[in-house]
Order: sequence, then structure tokens, then C-alpha cells
Amino acid sequence: MKIGLDVMGGDNAPMETVKGAVEALEIMEGTMVLYGDSNVVEKELLKYKVDLNRIELVHTSEVIMNEDKPVKAIKEKSDASMVVGLKALRKGEIDAFVSAGNTGALLAGGLFKVGRIKGIDRPAICSVYPTMVGTSVLVDAGANAECKVRNLVEFAQMGSVYAEKILGISNPKVGLANIGAEETKGTPLYIETHSQLKNEALNFVGNVEGRDIPSGCVDVIVADGFTGNIILKLTEGVAIQLVKGLKTEIMKNTIGKIGGLLLKGNLGAFKKRLDYTEYGGAPLLGINGLIVKAHGSSNSKAFKNAIKYAAIGVEQDLVGGIREKLQVNPEEDV
Amino acid sequence: MKIGLDVMGGDNAPMETVKGAVEALEIMEGTMVLYGDSNVVEKELLKYKVDLNRIELVHTSEVIMNEDKPVKAIKEKSDASMVVGLKALRKGEIDAFVSAGNTGALLAGGLFKVGRIKGIDRPAICSVYPTMVGTSVLVDAGANAECKVRNLVEFAQMGSVYAEKILGISNPKVGLANIGAEETKGTPLYIETHSQLKNEALNFVGNVEGRDIPSGCVDVIVADGFTGNIILKLTEGVAIQLVKGLKTEIMKNTIGKIGGLLLKGNLGAFKKRLDYTEYGGAPLLGINGLIVKAHGSSNSKAFKNAIKYAAIGVEQDLVGGIREKLQVNPEEDV
Repeated sequence: MKIGLDVMGGDNAPMETVKGAVEALEIMEGTMVLYGDSNVVEKELLKYKVDLNRIELVHTSEVIMNEDKPVKAIKEKSDASMVVGLKALRKGEIDAFVSAGNTGALLAGGLFKVGRIKGIDRPAICSVYPTMVGTSVLVDAGANAECKVRNLVEFAQMGSVYAEKILGISNPKVGLANIGAEETKGTPLYIETHSQLKNEALNFVGNVEGRDIPSGCVDVIVADGFTGNIILKLTEGVAIQLVKGLKTEIMKNTIGKIGGLLLKGNLGAFKKRLDYTEYGGAPLLGINGLIVKAHGSSNSKAFKNAIKYAAIGVEQDLVGGIREKLQVNPEEDV
Repeated sequence: MKIGLDVMGGDNAPMETVKGAVEALEIMEGTMVLYGDSNVVEKELLKYKVDLNRIELVHTSEVIMNEDKPVKAIKEKSDASMVVGLKALRKGEIDAFVSAGNTGALLAGGLFKVGRIKGIDRPAICSVYPTMVGTSVLVDAGANAECKVRNLVEFAQMGSVYAEKILGISNPKVGLANIGAEETKGTPLYIETHSQLKNEALNFVGNVEGRDIPSGCVDVIVADGFTGNIILKLTEGVAIQLVKGLKTEIMKNTIGKIGGLLLKGNLGAFKKRLDYTEYGGAPLLGINGLIVKAHGSSNSKAFKNAIKYAAIGVEQDLVGGIREKLQVNPEEDV
């Protein structure tokens, strides 16, 4: 297995990307292909003891920045680490590609350089959503601000395949994010989507309200990209503010500080559950090749986990699973 | 001042509604008018020491249930506590009306029995949103699943008046809920709303992402009712799950239990901040009269606070303030 990595992508590149690749090789089989400025990457690699037979370095001379316009950057920066990596994925030179770079560019690049799975109208970002009982997945986490009914139905199908193949949840429960339990709730888009989801070969359990999403009562949360992005970031924001508020109360006086110290051990597991670096990356589902988007502020641990999940995606043939769910003949896909 | 209360509305009516009215009279001037089944209400009132000169009882023979279809219920149940109260508000017999009943019916009743402020296309639910630094307001919290640009602009204006008059925030910062900071982010509805809000006489500070909403960086959060409802309920859901998770970790072992005990005092203030009963109710802004929706599961404290905020709304002339902001001549309103 060969996993490609955009070494230049993310706020902490290339130090944390290279470190993440080295750490990933320690826990996985196969090799890695690093796309980036070879001068910089070689210098970083020297810091680690690593079997150089398992790392291939492809020199690229350009970098897509966060402020670049996605489509323009993909078209014009043909020697960018992201573009070269995506082209390699298309050609089958690598089995999956991981990048923490510009999300819009990665999506546009996925569409233009790799292409969609036939039968999918719009690819989506599938994000792991930590809940109190485990993990759910959220599709779409922000790729498509505006959606049609068809898109939401496809998100449900793709999310269901992801939950089954990658998280190992059999017959995953699919819920439609909405503002009430009744099927007449929400906008016309959501009412019609609800009615279509009932007829799909899915374990559709109905609408899921904001209040219930964090409980883990469904395995796949389906939403348009606008709503999904708000759900994902708001959950993160509320958790951050609550933890901050808790710390403030603990530090208020001596008795609080002692109480906080005594709780430190117990709160470790709790903190781990909220830590996005444990989950690492979000695949772009619907692309005809496995692309994993890592968080822009990823550290080496987040990269290691993104690469790990990409490897699981290859092993479990995530892309093939989506193709099958949509009953598309693989030969028609190219 | 006379505040009307739908004694039959809410999961805990009439016990908690009557108790809330009694408690409210202890902290406010003026009188209350209770709409409901006089047999039941009189029995409840006997439980308390209360100055009966300050309570007026209007007997009603019907009740709108949560499962009733809103428009149908308002039209057909003409002697329902909610309908009779709304008609009294229209006639000026009371200065404000509080109800924990069927939200859709209260909205429909507000529109049909009381009417809109001229210049307002769609009334909205304005909910207090607790943040780590104080309180923001969220408009629309769920009245209008589908919105036009005009609606969002009016929500911003009305929310701004509420924050200024009721929460005492001068020149409140208005933010548009969105999936990125740039003005080109979001759906066409949000992009166009952003561009119009820049030209309004408002302290518009731009888009506010899900991650930043709970920080209190804006005073007024503007969203369509679908998004707003998800924001409100998801925030509640994340807080509930985190507190639950925290309790589980604390109870795991003896050292955790001791730590938890030591922290108990400090966490009181923290808990209070998350407690919706402190805020009590959400006004339906844009109706030509002050209607406050209390939470369906309100206890007496929540009713007391809803009544208290209704009284502040009357004192501060919230409805007049909105009229003024929209530069509508009050004589044209009837």
C-alpha cells in the first residue's frame, strides 16, 4: 500500500507533516510518498531514524496557499504539491492522498484531477463527530453550502458506507438533521429528503434534532454543507467554552484547585474524546479515489491518524464500497 | 402594568404556571391576568398567600394542545386560554402575554389575532443565548424554517433593539451565522444578506462561525429559523452531554468523587449560566404586541423569569422600539 501526503499543506507544514508521516510508518504496513519541496523535506527527514526504503520523495516547486482561490490555484499551480499528489492518485501511483491544505482547492482538485464516482452528483466532506457513546459521522461537513434533495440522499448513502467500513458499525443508523421529529418539519428540501430517505436501502431512523445529535443516537448525521459545518464547528465551540469555563471555576480558589487536581486523572479520558487529533482526517466522499482532508492546524499526531484512517480506507476499499452502494459498474467510472 | 399568562400552556400547567405567577408578583409591580379553567386555577391559587387584588382570573373552556395543528387550533378553539389571551392583548386589556403552549399556535395566533408590526414581513422567535461572557440573543430561533434576505435583515434589526432595550447592551454587535468569515461564504441567501446588512444602521460586525458563536463575540446572532433552531438546541445538547460525561468521570472512583465534592460550590455559578430557567422566555419579535414564549417544560422559576422579562419589555417599550427602528408610523399599524 502506498499513501501519498501533501507535505506542504497545513499551518504546521512541513515539520509536523513529515513527523506525522514518520510516526504513521511505525504503525502501518506499506510505504509513503511525500509531495513537497525536496530541500525542505530532506532536511526534516534527517531528524528521524526512518527506513528510507519506505519513503518516496516527489519534488514539487509550488504550494497552494489558504488564501488562494481554489479553482484558479488548481488550474494554474500545476506543480503544486497538492496537484501533483492528486494526479498521482488519478493514475493509481498511490492508493490514497492526505492533505491539510486549502479545503476548497482540495475539493476542486479532487473533482478536476481525480473525478467523481459515476452516479454521484456532489462529493461531500465526511467528518467524524465525537459523541458521548462513541463516534458518529457527519456528511456534509461543509463542501456544499447549497444542496438538492439528491445530494442529501447521496450523502446518506456514502456516510452509511463510511460508518460501516471504517468505523465498523453494522447497519448504521442514519438520521436527518432537522428542527423537529415529525416528517413535516424543516424546509421543503428537508421534508422531501425525509420522504426519499424512507425508500432507500438504508437504516433511516428519521429526523434528529440539534439537542439529540451529541448523544450519539444516530451513527450517520445527514445535513447540507451549510448546516453540517455549523453543527461541526458549533459543537467544537461549545466544548471549548465549557472546558474554559470549568477551568476558570476550578482556578477560582484553593479548594477548587485541589478538587481539580484530584480530578485530573479522570478527566484525561474525557479530554481525549473531544480531541480532534484522535480522528485525524475527513475523507472527501464521492471522489473516485480516496482523498483525506486533515485539519488545517494538524500536529504530527493528527497527521499520523489521518494517514492511519486513509490506510484503513484503502484496506476496506471505501471507494469501491460507495460505488457498490450506488450500484455503479466500476468500468464506467473512468 | 398588566401581564397576561396562559395558565393552561406548558408541560407543567397549571401547577407551575400559577406558582410562577405568584412568584412573579413578589418581584414586580402591577397585576396579572390568568387565562384558564377557573376551577383548576382557583384551587391552585388557594395554595399560596397572595394579594387577590393583583390577580385577575379569566375563565376559558378550551386548551390548545401540543399535538394540535396550529392554524386550525387558533381558528376553531376560540375559547382556548391562548386565544382569549391574545385577543385581550390586541384590545390593549393586557400589556404583554406569556405562554408555554404550542409554539406554532402561539405564532399563528400572534399573526391572526394580534397582527404584525407594519413593515415586518415575518415575525421571529428571539431567544437568549447564554455565552461564557454573558448573554447574546439569537434571531430567528425557529419560527421561519425558510427565509428571504429581507427576513434576515429584519431579524437583525429586531434583535438589535431587543439586545439594547432588554439586555441593556448599547450599540450591540450584530453577527450573521455563517460557515466562514469572508463575505463570499455561505448560500446565496447569506451572501446577499451580508451585503445588505453592511448598509443598515446597525453595528454589523460580519459573519460569525459556529466555533465562535458560544464565545459571546457578538451580541445578536442572526440566522434563518432552521439554522437558528439547530444552533440553539445543539448548544443545549452539547452542554447536557458534556455535563453528563463530566459526572460519569467524577463518579468513576473515590478520588474523583472527593474532587467533585470539593468543586461543588465553584460549579454552582457555572451551572446557573447554562440554566434556561434563568432566562425564562423568548419574545416573538415583529408582532404588534408583546408575546413571550416560555419553554414547554418550564417550571415556576422559568415562568417567573418569563413574566419578569415581559414586564421589562413593557417598561422599555420593546414593541415601540422595533417600530421606531423600522421607522413605521404607529398610527399606520392598526
